[in-house]
Amino acid sequence: MSRKERTVIALDAMGGDAGPEMVLAGAAIAQERYPLVSFLLFGDEEKVKPVLEKYPLLKEVTELRHAPDYIASDLKPSLALRQGRKSSMRYAINAVKEGEAKSIVSAGNTGALMATAKFVLRMIPSIDRPAIATVFPTNKGECVVLDLGANLECDAENLVQFAMMGSVFCSAVLGVASPSIGLLNIGVEEMKGHDEIRTAASILRERPIHGDFVGYVEGNDIMAGTTDVVVTDGFSGNIALKAVEGTARLMANMLRQAFSRTIFGKIGYLFACRALKKMKLRVDPRRYNGAMFLGLKGVCVKSHGGTDPEGFANAIGVAYDLVDRKFNERICDEMARHYGCDEETPNTEDSASTEGK
Amino acid sequence: MSRKERTVIALDAMGGDAGPEMVLAGAAIAQERYPLVSFLLFGDEEKVKPVLEKYPLLKEVTELRHAPDYIASDLKPSLALRQGRKSSMRYAINAVKEGEAKSIVSAGNTGALMATAKFVLRMIPSIDRPAIATVFPTNKGECVVLDLGANLECDAENLVQFAMMGSVFCSAVLGVASPSIGLLNIGVEEMKGHDEIRTAASILRERPIHGDFVGYVEGNDIMAGTTDVVVTDGFSGNIALKAVEGTARLMANMLRQAFSRTIFGKIGYLFACRALKKMKLRVDPRRYNGAMFLGLKGVCVKSHGGTDPEGFANAIGVAYDLVDRKFNERICDEMARHYGCDEETPNTEDSASTEGK
Repeated sequence: MSRKERTVIALDAMGGDAGPEMVLAGAAIAQERYPLVSFLLFGDEEKVKPVLEKYPLLKEVTELRHAPDYIASDLKPSLALRQGRKSSMRYAINAVKEGEAKSIVSAGNTGALMATAKFVLRMIPSIDRPAIATVFPTNKGECVVLDLGANLECDAENLVQFAMMGSVFCSAVLGVASPSIGLLNIGVEEMKGHDEIRTAASILRERPIHGDFVGYVEGNDIMAGTTDVVVTDGFSGNIALKAVEGTARLMANMLRQAFSRTIFGKIGYLFACRALKKMKLRVDPRRYNGAMFLGLKGVCVKSHGGTDPEGFANAIGVAYDLVDRKFNERICDEMARHYGCDEETPNTEDSASTEGK
Repeated sequence: MSRKERTVIALDAMGGDAGPEMVLAGAAIAQERYPLVSFLLFGDEEKVKPVLEKYPLLKEVTELRHAPDYIASDLKPSLALRQGRKSSMRYAINAVKEGEAKSIVSAGNTGALMATAKFVLRMIPSIDRPAIATVFPTNKGECVVLDLGANLECDAENLVQFAMMGSVFCSAVLGVASPSIGLLNIGVEEMKGHDEIRTAASILRERPIHGDFVGYVEGNDIMAGTTDVVVTDGFSGNIALKAVEGTARLMANMLRQAFSRTIFGKIGYLFACRALKKMKLRVDPRRYNGAMFLGLKGVCVKSHGGTDPEGFANAIGVAYDLVDRKFNERICDEMARHYGCDEETPNTEDSASTEGK
């Protein structure tokens, strides 16, 4: 099978706390799950090549390209843009821009990935700011939450656009025809919250966007599954995401202790372990790894930096699905419908050449 | 035993989603737990009296005082101040101001409670803004988180003062001699976050406050128990608190399902139920009900509006403990130590009489 028929995903081999070992082990898992995937792998050849040798099947569908540099996890986004032109992350994003790959997955520096992807791939017309979205497990199924950290502060129109993008993302990824949309606030009353939240709510009540705006929701509504989409600024969204992860981890630990401390607990576990494993699978943070950068002309997926190969494989799965379901084309359509702008096909415009010094 | 020897707690009988029924049932539980407590109960006599009749033991230690009005849950704080002068909430707070009660507990409108308590009780000298603090269960034990919703936006000095108050609160309530303090952010790197967070961090690195400032923490660090105190603005804190609650509830639901769906699950539960009940008790949101308004000259505790009697009894317990451990006196000492201001004894100054029109 030629690479043309495959879904090519660009990978930043140097991103994440554990670097190439984790990335390649994850790619190997993804390659088993998606027989039609192939990879363009960017990284320090000297470090990556020996690791790739460990995965002969992966090696068959992977093209390794040397990148002399990489982006440190604490590098400022502005510096990453200027100093990281020869980094594995930048090269991987360039591959999407140039049409060599359909999407890019990185577990590296979130701010640098966002800034570089925004600069190289450019924004979908009419969208002012990109947002990070991911899927959360809820009491009713699953929901989409955004922004999870791309924007520390957001104005009302940013929040409105997040709602529009999140709703289309929800339709594409979760198959909900007309998603219900909630705006995260510290109370459901009309008068609560920051000015920008109140203004965003009044715009959303008027604008006939894809989906159904239902009003304010609170932190507990995320996991309750009150709405299919929860919209918030990047600071609060990031805090919420990590608070959820932390709570799930605490409860899993406590559960483990409950079953191992007494002989009755141990016997109980033997009987209930199948049901418990099913439950564990449902809330496994690795299952929900893979956050999408919405609003860019190209699919860019951020994996948690501290994930393991299983989690990274899931992030690759998100990228694969989004390409497969033509998600970005659907966002372009929705934006064109509201803002009446020209729809441009992703990956065709030359913008990387205009890079400033 | 005379009322003088008891710890008198003022209760707002009309606050909370379920009103006097929930409040009085909660007080009845608290009265069993704290033989030295007595209550000043404020509310609509016609509605409260028949409920009080149901609890003869509670009635013995309770003085019911009629309040013709109450604060609706959606009333703006500014209106609550102006229109709520004859409300149960206001009367209960006045009782603390006038030294009749040592503390006040309400499950009513948070904003109104904060505004009224701040206006009537006044701030401890040198503290610019009050904060809401509560205790969270963590992987290592417990931690204090603040602010949970008193201040939508905070400047650097506000955050620094929250750190100082939170640290003293942690010592008083959790008995930690020198609490470790973390500032909630979306990354642990130096350059991340809003300006005010970065400025607060640099002040905290210099100022020799009670406790030990360790730097930034993230949302997952709350439940991991990375620090004894987590400091944040009221918007993010409220989102985090409710995200944690929602996650705990989701996992409890899933666990219940796992044990009830199959016969093996049910048998497993029979063996493990003792250990599981112990675990449930540890993360029960009712156990952690009762948030303290820090920074006021008087102990003011807010109960969750949707709690049940068990939860409300715990909020009363928080108020009781704080009075018992002379928490407010300790905060005054810490502030006086840093800002060199005159220390004033709570409940002595006449400020309610200066109320504007």
